[in-house]
Amino acid sequence: MTEVQTHLRTETDLIGPVELPADVYYGVNTVRAAENFQLSSTRLEQFPELISTLAIIKQAAAAANRDVGGLETTIADAIIAASQEIAAGQFHEQFILDMIQGGAGTSTNMNANEVIANRALEHLGHAKGDYDVLHPLNHVNMGQSTNDVYPTALKLALHHMTGLLLENLAVLKKSLRTKAEVFDSTVKMGRTQLQIAVPMTLGQEFAAWAVMIERAETGLKRVRFDLLELNLGGTAIGTGLNANPGYRERAIHHLRDITGLTGIASAPDLIASTADTQIFVDLSSALKRVGTSMSKIANDLRLLSSGPSGGFGELNLPARQAGSSIMPGKVNPVIPEAVSQVAFQVAGHDAAITMASEAGQLQLNPFEPIMARGLFDSISTLSNAATMFAEKCIDGITANESLMRDIVEGSAGLATVFSPVVGYKEATALALEANATGAKVTDLVLAKGLLSPQQVEQLISEALTN
Amino acid sequence: MTEVQTHLRTETDLIGPVELPADVYYGVNTVRAAENFQLSSTRLEQFPELISTLAIIKQAAAAANRDVGGLETTIADAIIAASQEIAAGQFHEQFILDMIQGGAGTSTNMNANEVIANRALEHLGHAKGDYDVLHPLNHVNMGQSTNDVYPTALKLALHHMTGLLLENLAVLKKSLRTKAEVFDSTVKMGRTQLQIAVPMTLGQEFAAWAVMIERAETGLKRVRFDLLELNLGGTAIGTGLNANPGYRERAIHHLRDITGLTGIASAPDLIASTADTQIFVDLSSALKRVGTSMSKIANDLRLLSSGPSGGFGELNLPARQAGSSIMPGKVNPVIPEAVSQVAFQVAGHDAAITMASEAGQLQLNPFEPIMARGLFDSISTLSNAATMFAEKCIDGITANESLMRDIVEGSAGLATVFSPVVGYKEATALALEANATGAKVTDLVLAKGLLSPQQVEQLISEALTN
Amino acid sequence: MTEVQTHLRTETDLIGPVELPADVYYGVNTVRAAENFQLSSTRLEQFPELISTLAIIKQAAAAANRDVGGLETTIADAIIAASQEIAAGQFHEQFILDMIQGGAGTSTNMNANEVIANRALEHLGHAKGDYDVLHPLNHVNMGQSTNDVYPTALKLALHHMTGLLLENLAVLKKSLRTKAEVFDSTVKMGRTQLQIAVPMTLGQEFAAWAVMIERAETGLKRVRFDLLELNLGGTAIGTGLNANPGYRERAIHHLRDITGLTGIASAPDLIASTADTQIFVDLSSALKRVGTSMSKIANDLRLLSSGPSGGFGELNLPARQAGSSIMPGKVNPVIPEAVSQVAFQVAGHDAAITMASEAGQLQLNPFEPIMARGLFDSISTLSNAATMFAEKCIDGITANESLMRDIVEGSAGLATVFSPVVGYKEATALALEANATGAKVTDLVLAKGLLSPQQVEQLISEALTN
Amino acid sequence: MTEVQTHLRTETDLIGPVELPADVYYGVNTVRAAENFQLSSTRLEQFPELISTLAIIKQAAAAANRDVGGLETTIADAIIAASQEIAAGQFHEQFILDMIQGGAGTSTNMNANEVIANRALEHLGHAKGDYDVLHPLNHVNMGQSTNDVYPTALKLALHHMTGLLLENLAVLKKSLRTKAEVFDSTVKMGRTQLQIAVPMTLGQEFAAWAVMIERAETGLKRVRFDLLELNLGGTAIGTGLNANPGYRERAIHHLRDITGLTGIASAPDLIASTADTQIFVDLSSALKRVGTSMSKIANDLRLLSSGPSGGFGELNLPARQAGSSIMPGKVNPVIPEAVSQVAFQVAGHDAAITMASEAGQLQLNPFEPIMARGLFDSISTLSNAATMFAEKCIDGITANESLMRDIVEGSAGLATVFSPVVGYKEATALALEANATGAKVTDLVLAKGLLSPQQVEQLISEALTN
Repeated sequence: MTEVQTHLRTETDLIGPVELPADVYYGVNTVRAAENFQLSSTRLEQFPELISTLAIIKQAAAAANRDVGGLETTIADAIIAASQEIAAGQFHEQFILDMIQGGAGTSTNMNANEVIANRALEHLGHAKGDYDVLHPLNHVNMGQSTNDVYPTALKLALHHMTGLLLENLAVLKKSLRTKAEVFDSTVKMGRTQLQIAVPMTLGQEFAAWAVMIERAETGLKRVRFDLLELNLGGTAIGTGLNANPGYRERAIHHLRDITGLTGIASAPDLIASTADTQIFVDLSSALKRVGTSMSKIANDLRLLSSGPSGGFGELNLPARQAGSSIMPGKVNPVIPEAVSQVAFQVAGHDAAITMASEAGQLQLNPFEPIMARGLFDSISTLSNAATMFAEKCIDGITANESLMRDIVEGSAGLATVFSPVVGYKEATALALEANATGAKVTDLVLAKGLLSPQQVEQLISEALTN
Repeated sequence: MTEVQTHLRTETDLIGPVELPADVYYGVNTVRAAENFQLSSTRLEQFPELISTLAIIKQAAAAANRDVGGLETTIADAIIAASQEIAAGQFHEQFILDMIQGGAGTSTNMNANEVIANRALEHLGHAKGDYDVLHPLNHVNMGQSTNDVYPTALKLALHHMTGLLLENLAVLKKSLRTKAEVFDSTVKMGRTQLQIAVPMTLGQEFAAWAVMIERAETGLKRVRFDLLELNLGGTAIGTGLNANPGYRERAIHHLRDITGLTGIASAPDLIASTADTQIFVDLSSALKRVGTSMSKIANDLRLLSSGPSGGFGELNLPARQAGSSIMPGKVNPVIPEAVSQVAFQVAGHDAAITMASEAGQLQLNPFEPIMARGLFDSISTLSNAATMFAEKCIDGITANESLMRDIVEGSAGLATVFSPVVGYKEATALALEANATGAKVTDLVLAKGLLSPQQVEQLISEALTN
Repeated sequence: MTEVQTHLRTETDLIGPVELPADVYYGVNTVRAAENFQLSSTRLEQFPELISTLAIIKQAAAAANRDVGGLETTIADAIIAASQEIAAGQFHEQFILDMIQGGAGTSTNMNANEVIANRALEHLGHAKGDYDVLHPLNHVNMGQSTNDVYPTALKLALHHMTGLLLENLAVLKKSLRTKAEVFDSTVKMGRTQLQIAVPMTLGQEFAAWAVMIERAETGLKRVRFDLLELNLGGTAIGTGLNANPGYRERAIHHLRDITGLTGIASAPDLIASTADTQIFVDLSSALKRVGTSMSKIANDLRLLSSGPSGGFGELNLPARQAGSSIMPGKVNPVIPEAVSQVAFQVAGHDAAITMASEAGQLQLNPFEPIMARGLFDSISTLSNAATMFAEKCIDGITANESLMRDIVEGSAGLATVFSPVVGYKEATALALEANATGAKVTDLVLAKGLLSPQQVEQLISEALTN
Repeated sequence: MTEVQTHLRTETDLIGPVELPADVYYGVNTVRAAENFQLSSTRLEQFPELISTLAIIKQAAAAANRDVGGLETTIADAIIAASQEIAAGQFHEQFILDMIQGGAGTSTNMNANEVIANRALEHLGHAKGDYDVLHPLNHVNMGQSTNDVYPTALKLALHHMTGLLLENLAVLKKSLRTKAEVFDSTVKMGRTQLQIAVPMTLGQEFAAWAVMIERAETGLKRVRFDLLELNLGGTAIGTGLNANPGYRERAIHHLRDITGLTGIASAPDLIASTADTQIFVDLSSALKRVGTSMSKIANDLRLLSSGPSGGFGELNLPARQAGSSIMPGKVNPVIPEAVSQVAFQVAGHDAAITMASEAGQLQLNPFEPIMARGLFDSISTLSNAATMFAEKCIDGITANESLMRDIVEGSAGLATVFSPVVGYKEATALALEANATGAKVTDLVLAKGLLSPQQVEQLISEALTN
C-alpha cells in the first residue's frame, strides 16, 4: 500500500484529481490529453524540432519575465536550465501526445509547461509536482498563451526544417547542373506533346530542370523569411493580455539571441497574426511547388529512360534494385517513382491544410495541429526525396548518345529548321513526305534542290543557339 | 410621364419598392438578387435542365396543393400551364441570375416563383404583378421552401444530365470495344513502370480500357439512383412545416407522374436530407472517377502514339488539325490532351464541392449553388469529352503492327516467359546479357541449349492466354 | 575474421553481392530497398494488417501451387507454416521498409518472399539463405507478381480495416440515436444560414446526424464489397503469364478458405484490374464522406455549445480537459475539433490518392504505396475518431432546455408558423415588427386579432410533426 | 451555284481543304479546332484580356521582325494595324473557340494569326485568304510558336486582371478599415474555439480582417511581378529556333513599349520557362489565399450576425433581399455566403491547376488552356466578390453595442483578466463558480476580497491595450 503511494503522485485540474507515476515529468493536463487523443501513430516525440523550439520559447519567456520583474531570478533560472536541456534533446520521450489533438495545440503547450516545470523543480531541489514553488502555468507559461506559443514554435521549427530542405535541394540542383555540363554538347530532339519537335542539347534539358528547382527554392525562401514574423507576446487573442509591460519586446529579443535568427520580428498586428494561419498555407503552397517540380523531373526521367526497346530510350537510370519479382532482369525507375509519390502526398497535405485554414473561426484557428502534422511530413519527406533523387538516380544517369543522334538525323522535325527558308507550306509537305516514305527530310530538301548542303549544315548548327 | 408609368411596374419586398420593366416576368426578388450577385459569367439560363426541373416541381406542387384543397383549381391550373411552358423551354431568358449566389438557391427559387406567377396571371387574363390574384409565394411556392425545392430541382436536373453522360460513355465504350476486336490478335509487349514487361495483345489493352469506363459507369449509376431520393415536402428544415396534410405524398406522386421516373421517393429522414449535401459529393466523386478513367486512357494513348521516331510509336492517332504554328507537319494528340484537361477540371470541382459540403451548418447548407455550378460543368464537359474522344480519336486509331512485333521478338522481356522453365536466376542472366549485347533472348536461350525451339514456340504462344 | 563470417551471410542480386546479418529473415532485395528508400517515418511494420494479408496470400499461393503440381508438398508446407506464423503476428519486425517506395510495392513483396523463404528454410532444417532448397522467388513467389500480390494484399487489408471502422461508426451512430431519444421532446428553433428558422426538436437534430453517419456507412459498405474483387493470378500484367494452369482458381479458393471471406472473387478482366487503381479512389471517396459527415456534426456541436454567454449555448459538451493555458476555467470543444482535423486529413489524402491514381501508365500504376499509406492513415484515424467522438463527447452531452424554449417563444421565426393562415406579406410585417420592437410574434398576432389563442396553440404544436 | 461560290472561300491544311464563309476573318485552323473542341460553354470571346494581349504580342512581334529585316515594312504595318484594332476590342467575335482545347493553345494562337492576317490583308487591299501576300504563319506568326506566344499572352492577361483584383481588394480593405475606426472603442469579448475568451474591441477585429486582406495582397503582388518574366522569343521549346537574330530583344522592347510595363523581361532560361508552368500554380496559390482570407471574414461575419435570438447577435448585416421563400421576415447573410462559395471555387481551380501543372511532359505542358480557364474564372469572380463584399455588406454593418457590453460584464472570461493577480488556480475556481451559479466574476472577486474595486477597474482597462 505504502509502496504504491511512493510511486504515484496526484495532480488536479478543473475536472478533478489524477494519479500519475511519480517519476514522469509531464502532469495532469498531459495525462488528460493523452487519454483524449489516441488518433494516429504520429507522436510529438517524432518532431524533435517542435519540442526544441517550444523549449527555446519557454527559455526566452522566462528570461523576459525575469527582465521585467515578473519572475524571480531563481525561478527563471531553473526554467531556463530545464528548457535548455530539452532544447538540447533531453526529455523528448516525455512528450507523449498524439500530434493530432483538439484545442489549437493547448495540450502540446501544457505538456511542455509541465515537463519544464518538473525538471526545473528538480534543479531547485524540489520534488516533481511541487507546483506551489514553481507552477507550469503561473511560472513557466507566464505571459503566454498556447495561442501565441504554439504557432511561434511551429514557425521556428518549420523555419529550421525548411533550411534543411533548402540544403538538400541545393544537392539536387548541383547534381542536375553537373549533368548539364556533362551533356553540354549532346544533341537530341526536344519533344512537345510527346511528339518530336526541334533540336536541343541534353545539357539544356538538365539545366532547365535545375532552373525549375531553383525557382521552387525562391518561393520557399520567401515564405521561410515570413515565418520569422511571430505573434509571441500576443497571448490569448493578440491583445497581449496578462503579459507584463515590456515582456513582449524582451521575449523577442531573447528569442533572437538564443536562435541567432536576426530576422525574428513581432507581427505588426498581433490579433490578425493570431487568428490567421495563412502563413502555413503559403508554406504548403511553396512545398507543393517544390514537390511538383521534382515530380515533373521524375516524370521526364521515366519517359526518357523508357524502354529498353519500344520506348524513348535516351537515358539510362542507374539500376538500384531488381525491378520485379516475376520479370528477371527488369530494372525499373524506382527512385523517380518514389519522388512522384512524395509530391502527391505533399499536394494532398496542401489540400488538407487549405481546408483547415479556411475553417478557422473568429480569434483563433483551432486546427493548427493538423497543419503542423502535414507540413512536418511534407518537409521531411521532400528533404529525404531530394537527396535520394540526386544521389541514387541523377548522379548515375548515362545517355545513349548515338540513339539521340539517329533520332535527330532521321526526324521530320528538321522541317521546322528549314521552314524559315523554304516556307511553312513547303516545310509541311516535306515533313509529311518524310513521315509517309521514311525518307530523311535532309535528303528530301537536297534532292528537291530547296537548300544547298551548306545551308542545311548552317541551319542545323544554328538551331541550338539562342 | 404617363408613358413611363405604362412601361414600368412597382413591386415591393421587405426592403422597399422596386420599379421594373412592366413586361418582364420576373419580380422584385429577382431584381434584388440580380443586383446583389454579379460574380461570374455563368447564368441560370445556361442550365435549361435546372430551369425545367424547377418548373416541373412547381407543376407537381400546384397539382398536389389542388388535390389536398390548398389551391383553387383555377389558380392551380394556371400555375400548371405556366410551369409546363417553362419546362418545355419557354421563358428561360427570364432566368437572369448568376449561378453563384448566396442564400442556398433562394433567389433561383424566387425567380421561378415570379416568372411562373406572372405567366400564370397572363393565362388568367390578369396583368403581371397582380399578386393579389395569384402570388409567387402564397400560391406558386405554397407548401414549399427553397430548402426543399432547390435541392430537388438540382437532383432531378443532375439525374437527367447524368443519363446523357451515360449515353455518351456508352459510345466511348463501344468505340473501345470495337478496336479491341480489331486488334484482337495484334501481339505486343505490355509495359509496367514504362519498361517493357511481358507479351499481350493490343486488343486486350483496348478491352481493359473499356472495362475501366464500365466500372466508372457502375459507380455513376449507383449515385444516379440515389439522386431520386428527394426532400420535397420537407419545406424549410425538413419538418414539413406549412405544407398541407397529404401534400408531400401527392407532390411526390405528381413528380413521378410528370417525369416518368418511378424511382422517385421521399427521403426517410427529411431533416437529414435537407441539411446534408453529401449526395452531391458522392456524385462528384463518381464524376471524378469517370474523368480520371478517361484521362488514364488519354495518357496511355499519348504514350503509345509518341514519336514518330524516338517514342513508343505503336499507335497512330488520327490527325485532327495542324499541330503547331511553327513546326510544319507536326501532328499532336490534341483530343487526348483535351480529355485530360476536362478530367483535371472535374477533380478541381470535386475539391470545391467537398469544401462547400463540409462547410454546411446546422439545418442547411447554403453553399449548394456552387456545388450545382461545378457539377453541371463537370457533367456537361465530360459528356462532350466522351463522344469527342470516341469519334475524333479512338475510332480512327491505327496500329503499327510490325513495329510491335519487332519489339516483342527483340525484347529481353521474353526472359520472363522462359523463367518458369529456366529459373529466375538464369533468366535474369539472360535478360542482362541480352540488354548488354543486343542479342535476342530467344537466340541466347537456344544457343545455350536451355530450351528447344519447340519449347520456345510453346512458351510464347501460351503467354497470351490466361 | 572467421568470427565475422559466421555472423554475416552474403546474398546476390543483379547489382551484385550484399552482406547482411546472418540472423535476419529478410534478404538482398529488402536490403537494397531499405537503402534506397529512407523517406518517411512510416514503416511497413506499422501496418500489421498488410503484413498479415501478404502472408495469407503467400499461404494460399503455396497451397494452390501444391495442388496443381507446381510445388512439392514439403516445400509448400514449409511456406505455408512460415506464412501462418507471420499472419499470426510473428516476424513483423523483419518488415523494415519505408511505406513510401518506388516500384509499385515490389520491395514489399520481396520483403515478404524473403522472410517467408528464410523462415520456411528453418522449418526444413536449413540455414537462412539456402535458396537452392527453397527460393524466395522461384518458390515463395511462384505464379505471382508484385502486380497481383501487392494490390490483393492491400485490398484484403483495407477490407479488414474497413470492417473495424464500420464497427466504430456503429458505436457513434448508437450514441447519436440514444441522445435522439433522450431529447425526443425538447423543442428548439432550427436554424438555416445561422439564422433562426422554424421549430424542431433536439431529438430530430441528433437523429438526422445519425442518418448522415448511416448514409456514409452505406457508401463505405458498397466499396468494401468491391474490395474483394481481386486480380490475384493475373501476375505481371493480368495475362496470368507464368502461373500454372489451374493455379488462379485454386489460389482464390484457398484465399476464400483461409479468410472465410466468401465474397472473394476473381476480377472479370485481370488486365484492367491490374492497371486500374480506381477502387482505391472509390474507397478514399467513401472515407472522405465518412470524415466530412463526422466533421459536419462536430461543426454543429461546436456551434450549438458556443458560449457560455454570447453564443448559441444550447448544448453542453462534457469537459475533457482544461481548455487553456492562460484562460482559467475555459472549457473548449476539443473532441469535435480533433474530429474535424481528422476529416481534413482524410480529404487531403483523397487529393493525393486521386493524383496518384490519375498518373498510372499503361499496364500498371506504380504509385500504389502512397495510396496505401494514405488509406491506412485515413481508416485508422477515422476509426479512432469515431469512438472518441462517441464516448468522449456525444455520450456526455446535456441540453439547456429552458434556454431553447425561451428562444422558441421569443422568436420571430414563429411568423413562418402563422404564415399559411395570415399570408406571407402579413407574416413578413409581423416578423419585422417583432425584430424591431422586441415584441413576441405571438403577442402581436393575438393583439392584432389575426389569430385566436386556440389557433396559435394549434399551429405551434402542428409545426413539429411532419 | 455561282452565288454560293462568292460567299465561301476555301482554305487548306495538312488534312485537306475546308470551305468557310468568305466574310469570316478566321481560317482553316480555327475551323478545325472549332469542330474538334465543343466541350464547354466558355469561349475565348469571354476573355477579352487574352485576345487583346495576343494581339499586342503579334503587334510587338511584327515590329520586331520589321526591325531586324524579317518582314517588309508594308506587311509589318498591316499586321500592326490589324493587331491594334483587335487589342482595342474589335473583331473579338471572330475568336470562336472553346477555352478548353488540346494542343497547349495552338488553336488559340492559330485563331489570332488568321484573324490578324485576314484583317491585315484588307488593310492592304487584298481579299481574305490571299495568304500568298500575307500569311498567318509565315508572316503574322514569324519567329513565334504557340509555345512562347500563348503563355506570354496568358501572363500579360493575368497581370492585367490581377491589377483589377488588387484595386478591388483595396476597396474591400478600405471598407474594413473604415469600420475599424467606427468601432474603435466598442468593447467586446473575443472568442477562441467559439468560446468566450478575453476582451478586445470590435475595431481591432475589423482591423485584423483588413490586415489579412493586406497579407493576401502582398503574396499576390509578388506573383504578379513574376508574371512579367516572359519566354517570348523562345519559340517551340525555348531554343529560339527560327527567330531572326535580334528578334527577341526587339520583341521584348516593343512589348514593354506598347504595354508601358517596364517590368517585362526575358526569362533567364527560356527552355525552363517554356516547359514549366509553376508560375500559374503560384498565381493560383496566391488567389486561393485571397479567397480563403475573404471566406474567413465571411465566416466570422455570419457567426457574429447569427441570431437574431439564440445566436452571437453582435453585428447586423444590411438586409439585401428577402431571405426565404417560406419564412417571412427572415434576412440571411447572403453576401458572405456568396463570398465563401467563390473561395471554394478558387480552391477547386487550384486543385485542377496543380494537377494540370504536374502532368506536363518534357519540353511543354499541353494543359495550359485549363489552367487559363481556371485562373480567369478565379480572378474575375474574386474581383467581383471583393467589391460586392465591401459595398453590399461591410459598409452597411452596424453593431449591437449594448449586447456586447453585457457579454463582457457577465463573462467568466474576466477571470483571465484577474488571473495574473489572483493566480491561475484561483481564477479557475472563480470561472467555474461564475458559470455554475450565474454570478458575475467581478462580483465574486470583490465579494471574496481578492481584488479591490480599483484593481478590477484597472485590470479591465489594461486588458485592451497591448
